[in-house]
Amino acid sequence: MPKISHKGQQMPASPIRKLTPYADRAKLDGKKVYHLNIGQPDIETPEGMLNAIKNIDFKVWAYTPSEGTLSYRKKLTEYYNKIGYNISPENIIVTTGGSEAITISMMACLNPGDEVIIPEPFYANYNGFACQSDIVVKPILSYIDNGFALPSIEEFEKLITPKTKAIIICNPNNPTGYLYSKEEMEALKALVLKYDLYLFSDEAYREFCYDGQSFISPMHLSGLDENVIVMDTVSKRYSACGARLGCLITKNKAVLTAGLKFAQARLSAGMVEQIAGEAAVDTPDEYFEAVNKEYTSRRNTIVNALNKMEGVYCPNPGGAFYVVAKLPIDNADNFCQWMLESFSLNNETVMMAPATGFYSTPGAGVNEVRMAYVLNNNDIEKAMICLDEALKVYPGRTVNSEAVGSFQ
Amino acid sequence: MPKISHKGQQMPASPIRKLTPYADRAKLDGKKVYHLNIGQPDIETPEGMLNAIKNIDFKVWAYTPSEGTLSYRKKLTEYYNKIGYNISPENIIVTTGGSEAITISMMACLNPGDEVIIPEPFYANYNGFACQSDIVVKPILSYIDNGFALPSIEEFEKLITPKTKAIIICNPNNPTGYLYSKEEMEALKALVLKYDLYLFSDEAYREFCYDGQSFISPMHLSGLDENVIVMDTVSKRYSACGARLGCLITKNKAVLTAGLKFAQARLSAGMVEQIAGEAAVDTPDEYFEAVNKEYTSRRNTIVNALNKMEGVYCPNPGGAFYVVAKLPIDNADNFCQWMLESFSLNNETVMMAPATGFYSTPGAGVNEVRMAYVLNNNDIEKAMICLDEALKVYPGRTVNSEAVGSFQ
Repeated sequence: MPKISHKGQQMPASPIRKLTPYADRAKLDGKKVYHLNIGQPDIETPEGMLNAIKNIDFKVWAYTPSEGTLSYRKKLTEYYNKIGYNISPENIIVTTGGSEAITISMMACLNPGDEVIIPEPFYANYNGFACQSDIVVKPILSYIDNGFALPSIEEFEKLITPKTKAIIICNPNNPTGYLYSKEEMEALKALVLKYDLYLFSDEAYREFCYDGQSFISPMHLSGLDENVIVMDTVSKRYSACGARLGCLITKNKAVLTAGLKFAQARLSAGMVEQIAGEAAVDTPDEYFEAVNKEYTSRRNTIVNALNKMEGVYCPNPGGAFYVVAKLPIDNADNFCQWMLESFSLNNETVMMAPATGFYSTPGAGVNEVRMAYVLNNNDIEKAMICLDEALKVYPGRTVNSEAVGSFQ
Repeated sequence: MPKISHKGQQMPASPIRKLTPYADRAKLDGKKVYHLNIGQPDIETPEGMLNAIKNIDFKVWAYTPSEGTLSYRKKLTEYYNKIGYNISPENIIVTTGGSEAITISMMACLNPGDEVIIPEPFYANYNGFACQSDIVVKPILSYIDNGFALPSIEEFEKLITPKTKAIIICNPNNPTGYLYSKEEMEALKALVLKYDLYLFSDEAYREFCYDGQSFISPMHLSGLDENVIVMDTVSKRYSACGARLGCLITKNKAVLTAGLKFAQARLSAGMVEQIAGEAAVDTPDEYFEAVNKEYTSRRNTIVNALNKMEGVYCPNPGGAFYVVAKLPIDNADNFCQWMLESFSLNNETVMMAPATGFYSTPGAGVNEVRMAYVLNNNDIEKAMICLDEALKVYPGRTVNSEAVGSFQ
């Protein structure tokens, strides 16, 4: 029997999905499970996007150009220029989800063994994509106590070696919800210019900024044209995760040339999705206003509820739809599994993602969980009552001082 | 300015698409271009599949499970078991096109530096996918004079080293149209078992076998459960290239486990496509009968026309919708470009794919072109008249004996 590859063994399983068998078991046992583990919003996809699908009128479901249809790239250009990116359709390669924007960027820019610095906790699949391309992730710790702000530039510089090729940021951040400030972005700019690095900017949650705060992209900063690659997706913006439609944006021509060759190898992105994506750009502002109002309210609900629980701490994040909370527990992996296997309140329980999967430093985040506020306020409230009760009886509960690990 | 990666430089550009700028120029100049260069069928997508899209009734365009929806995998199982594969839904990972089935298989099974043997000419993007994963392609020549039959097992054995991990076949073949016989498949079986290799079976054209010949998959052969990975797609079967929906099928559990982790990293395949794919399985037999009749007739048209031209030879392939023909020319790259740039008959010309892009042995196929018979008979006839005239006046025309290169 032939062996599988090293990376076939080393690829990490999804921390968001790994407890799914326990959730399935709980449901089979008749429990209701509140899913706060996965960033699948319950928000409805804009009607215009769904109508575009229903109204398709082609006879042959054909390939599109590998870089995406000109029509869709033109429409995207409208959207991006409205938010000040100053691009043309030639700066865009349409991808199969944000995921492919990341893998193409990595393959086009980094050699096996090259290093990429990522503030942690970070989107867990960066680990998987790096593993696919034999790229080395160098995590740099951010801390719950200051809401997971950008680590200091001095800390970044400590990690830079001749192998360092790129920095990845996700802004607003998954899993922490942290929104980088103008000052933090300017500091990153100086850093990538000083060391001639790529700055990969994952902007999946761009639309979700709260409390009147502004989103700052590296595309808004001058002098970074050769360094910045934006990795974007319609998944969260339009609650269209299943569309698998994203794009890569850069003004670096060499990256566009290389990226297009990877895009050509896989032929094209989905045709129906590009038609729907074009319609999505015309989504009325009221849609986003309503969604942001809803998310702000949910964030307030979950953050308030968490901070009222004894021994729990949760920062109040400025964007996205996630929070990372520190719980008075020995081990979040065990706790999350125990919640599904052994706990229920009124026959209900809560599924969360243990934060360890979002760290690559061993031992970091061991008493933290990520929660996605993708349920309505009423369900979030019930889930929080359930979590509060669970924490009171969990056998691995720690007193406050014990919960203070070296990484908190 | 940061550098792009080695593989970003080395990735081959698509041989099918690389002459596109010349075709665009010809069209701007008012010429009609017959596109025989690309495997984009003009056949209509089955109505049931398109209706499934028009009838979607979800409100949230959500992620699906990374391995594909159970509902779609069940339906696919029906299809595959009808053709004797004896599988269950657990043997299937739904992928974004056949392309992703290939990349996931390569990543799950081969390490950087490992070797894969592929009879050439072969589907050009195998080169790109191998480059992405730092895998080494070892081509083994097949010859136009015997219609591109499977090279002898002795020739395969000459190429086997400790680094050899897999063989890829595409059956019926792109670009040659060759359909492997039962004997050839049995010989491959003995070979992969002897050396404990993976057999990657690209079956994109399974449905297109002519003259009453049968398609034999390695899934039809016993004793290969741990070795075989089928890479499939709906692209050609249902003329749905733009759906980007495929799958990987194997009975090897370690490959399924590893493959699922790569699938999890990119989250999921498209949701709408899986709904459409489910409907596609119910496409009535009459659809395929009509399509096969049409393709058989087109193949006869193109093969007859080609073999009537002076100095041209084209085998009569048993499947797919491609032919590779040998032309009395110095260099197919030059010739194909010249056809677009400098030739026209009644203001019309023909776009073909130079066969060199389908070989990885330098110099092989230099006087061969691939043509996809994806136009109707009438257009094919006109294209062949145009080609015949072009060959008569092409400045790089060779006499018959000169055309006999070392690789023909």
